[in-house]
Amino acid sequence: MRKIRRVLIANRGEIALRIVRACNILGLETIGVYSEADSSLAHLRLVDHRICIGPAAAARSYLDIPRIMRAASLTEADAIHPGYGFLSENPDFAQAVEQAGLVLVGPSAAVMRLMGDKISAKQQMRLAGVPCLPDSDGALPADPAMARTICAAIGYPLIVKASGGGGGRGMRIVHHETELDTAIATAREEAGRAFGNPVVYAERFLQKPRHIEIQVLADIHGHAVWLGARDCSVQRRHQKLVEEAPACGIAPERIAALGALCARACIRMGYTGAGTFEFLYEDGEFAFIEMNTRLQVEHPVTEMTTGIDIVREQLRIAMGHPLSIRQHDIHTTGHALECRINAEDAVTLRPSPGLVTKWRAPGGPGVRVDTHLYDGYAVPPHYDSLVAKLIVHGTDRADAINRMKAALDEMQITGIATTATLHRRLMDEPAFAAGEINVHYLETIMGTVAS
Amino acid sequence: MRKIRRVLIANRGEIALRIVRACNILGLETIGVYSEADSSLAHLRLVDHRICIGPAAAARSYLDIPRIMRAASLTEADAIHPGYGFLSENPDFAQAVEQAGLVLVGPSAAVMRLMGDKISAKQQMRLAGVPCLPDSDGALPADPAMARTICAAIGYPLIVKASGGGGGRGMRIVHHETELDTAIATAREEAGRAFGNPVVYAERFLQKPRHIEIQVLADIHGHAVWLGARDCSVQRRHQKLVEEAPACGIAPERIAALGALCARACIRMGYTGAGTFEFLYEDGEFAFIEMNTRLQVEHPVTEMTTGIDIVREQLRIAMGHPLSIRQHDIHTTGHALECRINAEDAVTLRPSPGLVTKWRAPGGPGVRVDTHLYDGYAVPPHYDSLVAKLIVHGTDRADAINRMKAALDEMQITGIATTATLHRRLMDEPAFAAGEINVHYLETIMGTVAS
Repeated sequence: MRKIRRVLIANRGEIALRIVRACNILGLETIGVYSEADSSLAHLRLVDHRICIGPAAAARSYLDIPRIMRAASLTEADAIHPGYGFLSENPDFAQAVEQAGLVLVGPSAAVMRLMGDKISAKQQMRLAGVPCLPDSDGALPADPAMARTICAAIGYPLIVKASGGGGGRGMRIVHHETELDTAIATAREEAGRAFGNPVVYAERFLQKPRHIEIQVLADIHGHAVWLGARDCSVQRRHQKLVEEAPACGIAPERIAALGALCARACIRMGYTGAGTFEFLYEDGEFAFIEMNTRLQVEHPVTEMTTGIDIVREQLRIAMGHPLSIRQHDIHTTGHALECRINAEDAVTLRPSPGLVTKWRAPGGPGVRVDTHLYDGYAVPPHYDSLVAKLIVHGTDRADAINRMKAALDEMQITGIATTATLHRRLMDEPAFAAGEINVHYLETIMGTVAS
Repeated sequence: MRKIRRVLIANRGEIALRIVRACNILGLETIGVYSEADSSLAHLRLVDHRICIGPAAAARSYLDIPRIMRAASLTEADAIHPGYGFLSENPDFAQAVEQAGLVLVGPSAAVMRLMGDKISAKQQMRLAGVPCLPDSDGALPADPAMARTICAAIGYPLIVKASGGGGGRGMRIVHHETELDTAIATAREEAGRAFGNPVVYAERFLQKPRHIEIQVLADIHGHAVWLGARDCSVQRRHQKLVEEAPACGIAPERIAALGALCARACIRMGYTGAGTFEFLYEDGEFAFIEMNTRLQVEHPVTEMTTGIDIVREQLRIAMGHPLSIRQHDIHTTGHALECRINAEDAVTLRPSPGLVTKWRAPGGPGVRVDTHLYDGYAVPPHYDSLVAKLIVHGTDRADAINRMKAALDEMQITGIATTATLHRRLMDEPAFAAGEINVHYLETIMGTVAS
């Protein structure tokens, strides 16, 4: 058992608050870190110790590994929870934490590195029997003729992707062989600039896939479980906006078979902690795209449907405990939806930081709001625009949609613009209600919805 | 099917908000009524129509049947939800609603009257096979000698109780026959004054019982289900302060057997809507005390453990729908606790109305807060002191207690005194953690806890 007494939370906003709550339930002491722009964050009221780690710019605070490590040393932390974003998937950070003799609430640096590179991640998945799209089986060669031969075998349309990172950067869709050379060159150039790694690979491009993901938990004793599937197809600019569990219209047996493969892959790789296997789903087939080696924004929909506190489990795993649940004890009930409420104009999607003059959270049965908002809080302009996650749990998807509508109607936020109006209109869309969604759905209807 | 389009909510505070939320999910229009002291109630922001029904004094507003009926007529309501307290168990009100051709969200006036009289209620229970304590089998006779003979057969200690009402009034514990005549006379006098009905009866007195209750739902088509048991033993002055589900240490099969009897009693009586059978439990035996023919304050702990929205079911039943759930679909998971946060000094227990200068609700997985509080709300002095219900759901009782501790620590309310500090200390009490509670538990430890 690894003795953990004091956890440093290397994050901000709603997820920092979420982690403090989980630590409190386990009786763990907490250390909150914050930038100079963030001294009024809600979770800092609840932590045992707080420490300012630098200026507003994330590069000099939340993304600054030496500063975080110095704060951990000063406050005598035993463990660090990285949350999501920032350093949460940075293997150099994980390595720094390991080398300092502290516990990272997450997988080892080695596994993180393996999954961080998309080519090696896919290789691992193939070895574990996890379904993947046909691809270039490694980096595309520098020689254009060889690249063309490889791509012809994959078939068009295909997508050229950066191995070193995602978020749409270093990514090009290629419909005809004639476009290939330029696409590879541009993608390489972009990837090199964005991730410091120009390696690109090619894989078959799906036209209208859904984004389906499997949540897993794995302990250090070689046990792993999967907690059902989420559908996160409602995206724009590769950012998820609405997430749900379970994934409607996909037979539970298919999810169970895929979940079992994911759990097996975890054990095979020595993966520990919470993690997510992301898939595209089209024409009844799943294809692995990447693994997120961290907690995800959308974890609450899985918590609502399974009753499992994923952050508590993460911490327990980090403490060396065996998983408190076995696969056959995990049952999902009802349907959960999450709307990401961002401080953005719902039409232009431009960030809208500023003073929150009034905040009234919705409530009632089946409603959960994860937020760091309060009356008089000023949303700083420096960070991600997520200010609240509105999560509802209903008996089925239609009931969940009704509850989300009522919750959105009840929610009041003044002083800043948010995506709430976009969400409210989306809940009225017949295609959304019918579950006819794919990763392009939101962008297709944005003109209608956001007007 | 009874057509309901518009529901008048004949209540205030958190329960009015709770009912609005359920109506919104079902797409029902809502009418909020309020006294002159209550124009800033939170739910009035969410209703479709609002109407002031009279002065602050409840007798001239929330308890005034003609005024409520006039408001219903003016606003063209089809149905009235009475909430709890106020007119919710008043058969004259139920009758007025029926006679006006409106739907009461609750049972018929006739059944309400039958259960409102404790003697007739016990007779009904005996006929349905529900266990009851040995008693005088009806009113105690006026003749002292006859009363003594009847009481000798029951055995001492016994309790003399008013048939017309509860809350400790018209109630006397009798340890020896020598005290009987005076006790009966005093109880009669008190009962006459409190309930306009001097009838008293006697039943065996239990020394250290627990308060266990069974939640039921019954539709107008002759179906009834029970939703598990709650333990509401933590009381002071006959007011519940902490409630939980399930009732720890009682075998599920025993609860199932009792629940089946309660459901059968509902069908036998023609009971419709939500209701609660209250029992004392001592030495492994249950004894019926009374039935609450309405929604209860503590209904959320049952909602958290069963996933069933009781208020939605109430409304659906009133609309004439058959129950949406069958007994074999009802499963309870984990453990839920509710703390009633009252605007009272935690030591002196004196009411503490006034301006709420800051309100920060706790949150996170498994935490629900039912409240009408907001920053700047002034708690009026005229009504019940309940201002928030803090409800948590954990994997088991120990986890629920940990979550309640963390939630109480996180909750912030300034400007008024509340019972939160009392609750927080109670959660640390070893006897509470061990489940060693009975109806006298809180009063026994109040000196320790409240100091």
